[in-house]
Amino acid sequence: MKKYTAINDIENLSDTIQKAIQLKKNPYQCTHIGQHKTLVMLFFNASLRTRLSTEKAAKNLGMQVSVLNVTNAWNMEFEDGAVMNLNTSEHIKEAAKVISQYADIIAVRAFPTLEDKEKDRAETVLNSFVKYATVPIVNMESATDHPLQALADAITITETKTVAKPKVVLSWAPHPKALPHSVANAFIHLMHRMEVDFVITHPKGYELDPEITKQFPIEYDQQKAFENADFIYAKNWSSFNDYGNILNEDPNWMITQEKIGAAKFMHCLPIRRNVVAEDAVLDGDNALVIEQANNRTFAAQIVLQEILTHL
Amino acid sequence: MKKYTAINDIENLSDTIQKAIQLKKNPYQCTHIGQHKTLVMLFFNASLRTRLSTEKAAKNLGMQVSVLNVTNAWNMEFEDGAVMNLNTSEHIKEAAKVISQYADIIAVRAFPTLEDKEKDRAETVLNSFVKYATVPIVNMESATDHPLQALADAITITETKTVAKPKVVLSWAPHPKALPHSVANAFIHLMHRMEVDFVITHPKGYELDPEITKQFPIEYDQQKAFENADFIYAKNWSSFNDYGNILNEDPNWMITQEKIGAAKFMHCLPIRRNVVAEDAVLDGDNALVIEQANNRTFAAQIVLQEILTHL
Amino acid sequence: MKKYTAINDIENLSDTIQKAIQLKKNPYQCTHIGQHKTLVMLFFNASLRTRLSTEKAAKNLGMQVSVLNVTNAWNMEFEDGAVMNLNTSEHIKEAAKVISQYADIIAVRAFPTLEDKEKDRAETVLNSFVKYATVPIVNMESATDHPLQALADAITITETKTVAKPKVVLSWAPHPKALPHSVANAFIHLMHRMEVDFVITHPKGYELDPEITKQFPIEYDQQKAFENADFIYAKNWSSFNDYGNILNEDPNWMITQEKIGAAKFMHCLPIRRNVVAEDAVLDGDNALVIEQANNRTFAAQIVLQEILTHL
Repeated sequence: MKKYTAINDIENLSDTIQKAIQLKKNPYQCTHIGQHKTLVMLFFNASLRTRLSTEKAAKNLGMQVSVLNVTNAWNMEFEDGAVMNLNTSEHIKEAAKVISQYADIIAVRAFPTLEDKEKDRAETVLNSFVKYATVPIVNMESATDHPLQALADAITITETKTVAKPKVVLSWAPHPKALPHSVANAFIHLMHRMEVDFVITHPKGYELDPEITKQFPIEYDQQKAFENADFIYAKNWSSFNDYGNILNEDPNWMITQEKIGAAKFMHCLPIRRNVVAEDAVLDGDNALVIEQANNRTFAAQIVLQEILTHL
Repeated sequence: MKKYTAINDIENLSDTIQKAIQLKKNPYQCTHIGQHKTLVMLFFNASLRTRLSTEKAAKNLGMQVSVLNVTNAWNMEFEDGAVMNLNTSEHIKEAAKVISQYADIIAVRAFPTLEDKEKDRAETVLNSFVKYATVPIVNMESATDHPLQALADAITITETKTVAKPKVVLSWAPHPKALPHSVANAFIHLMHRMEVDFVITHPKGYELDPEITKQFPIEYDQQKAFENADFIYAKNWSSFNDYGNILNEDPNWMITQEKIGAAKFMHCLPIRRNVVAEDAVLDGDNALVIEQANNRTFAAQIVLQEILTHL
Repeated sequence: MKKYTAINDIENLSDTIQKAIQLKKNPYQCTHIGQHKTLVMLFFNASLRTRLSTEKAAKNLGMQVSVLNVTNAWNMEFEDGAVMNLNTSEHIKEAAKVISQYADIIAVRAFPTLEDKEKDRAETVLNSFVKYATVPIVNMESATDHPLQALADAITITETKTVAKPKVVLSWAPHPKALPHSVANAFIHLMHRMEVDFVITHPKGYELDPEITKQFPIEYDQQKAFENADFIYAKNWSSFNDYGNILNEDPNWMITQEKIGAAKFMHCLPIRRNVVAEDAVLDGDNALVIEQANNRTFAAQIVLQEILTHL
């Protein structure tokens, strides 16, 4: 692997999932592979799971890790040809090349503006690092994607499924804040790669990018979508068409134990209890959310290992 | 040891103190014990000594360390059953379980509100971690206690005392800001466990939690309390009865060289010079404050070592 | 080396440069020298290059590294005898002694106020650490100096020069913010130690501290200064005489490709494109800025190595 910015950077997904599951059994089997290698983790946004799991994954491989909250330093310029006489202090051209000299792999987290749709879809921050850095880039959640979460979800589903081709539902759920589309997009990208029967459900107006969803059915009736589901993946996102806005917070879309029945419940976390899903769901036996978070370590570790192997 | 949230988690205190003193002579005698073990340090509040000494202690044992300023991420919810539609993004139930998967030990710093007395006394943050985490918790100063400081103080007194049962005085001292009771409480808890003649002195109105102080004499005349003292431990705290408020900043309670005479002077630091204690005290030969801070490393190291031994 | 607060702490500069160039070929030749040694990096100001390169250098030597943003903790007091009843919580006397117990080397970054000229020239923060710490201090950019940058620049010039005694020009360049004098000063201190023909050029009113520049010619005509230059080092600084103020942002002083011709272009970064230097300069073959940043690692590493050798 030369970089990991999207799930499609993984050539053989089921093979990678199996390797991650093997790693999970003994995370310290390759502590030599990262010797004298440095991971620089750059955060343009806050992080808990991604920060701790990716750092742990790198250290499990014997890497050195530097964590930098970029916003503690200064604003970066991403526009080509900009006259930098305002509030940006360093151009990504220099920043990416310079950091590449201190790092063997650079991991980047940079959320969308949720205001400038075209800028967000262009993945300006992530793609600028890909363009100008001279070392591999790992996406720790970008404007429109979150492939480390998707890989962790793939591991979780693979470990848990009891039928060859499970029914998986991605359901919008209410939330008081306008949230990115990245986790939903990443999960849909993943569904393209897995042997599943996949349905998306959300209120009208919450359609995601049609380029991403076009091969999958959209069912506006949540309860109908949930029928015979094996896995229900809940996530809030703001409107894509009315970009970045909250159209409604309809509490009827909250995930309840009654609704999910025997289906497994998935969410990337953090989750707002009794808004996105009720306590009974999260405290119930069918919730996979803690294991999903656990698998973040092994998703990150197999990705870093594959990249290190090809340095 | 299964956790370290209070000095009473130590079964045999004098034995632990002796082990810490042995560690101090050669801090690298157990660099294998922490191999492939991770300490996650979570800060809800600022830290200098605790951060650096605990991180160093963990690394001396060969542990990996991740430091996370929680307030850089998002607000956590601690109330059971909360409908999280306001400003909290993640419930402690998920956070504690998730972090437990990335950590072998979790260390937490979370100061009191100094506004909500019952919430502070309930130790909501610390106890929620104890309740929901699946790995041992270390208290890096909580709403009402600071047992790593107390253990460092125990080491310092043990190394310094010249009589079997020294007279120790805990004295309130002035300060311009409303401060927590945690260090004072921790020191009093320690005094219960040591062979000492212990007196507390403070202006009227600054009585600490009577549940904690009840077995010890309170002397409102500072100079009388200081008579024949071997150790004088100074600390400011805000009122417990008139909760979290400053009743006076009476400069007559400042510790002076004349007042302490031949007694050793202790303080947990940071200390406001010429407010809590005058320069002559801190620059004098009887000040133990720098050695107390040094012993923080070995207090943390013996605690982590004991916990690692019982994982 | 007992500390590294100025380039003159290096006794034999050309020897040190050659050692750094050797280190660059194999950065992992001395991973034992830092074993069980801790570098504490204290930041009073933001950092990207210095943070990552110095951390990497220390880890290349096998050191443990703790990074602390001091401003996340509390304000420190530097005045002797201060009555600390205002907004400072810890005196440097305690802080420096305490941190010295957790560190084998302390590295400090503390920018100038650009308001109080005498305080800045006194290097209050850096010199207080030198005075009160009991371990060696490394300057990661202080109020008036930046010797790690200067050493990286020395390595870069040595690697690049094609004549025994190159002509080197330090040129002021425009910038929208008032900037420190530290990089310019550090470069001038370096020029004293290298075999170069050195000229300083800037608009009238931007004279630097005459104590530092006195042995070198100042040429107010930029183009004249650039004639036959081998290296052009660009940097903005605010006025020294009209202390900390911006007198003009004359865009005619921006560095252009036409102006520099065949000369190599140097800058410490971060650089504002099309304000300090035009894109064509930074994207051209004569720009050394990325390599200067790369050499920051080896400058830091040889400094730490020399200090560790003499502990």
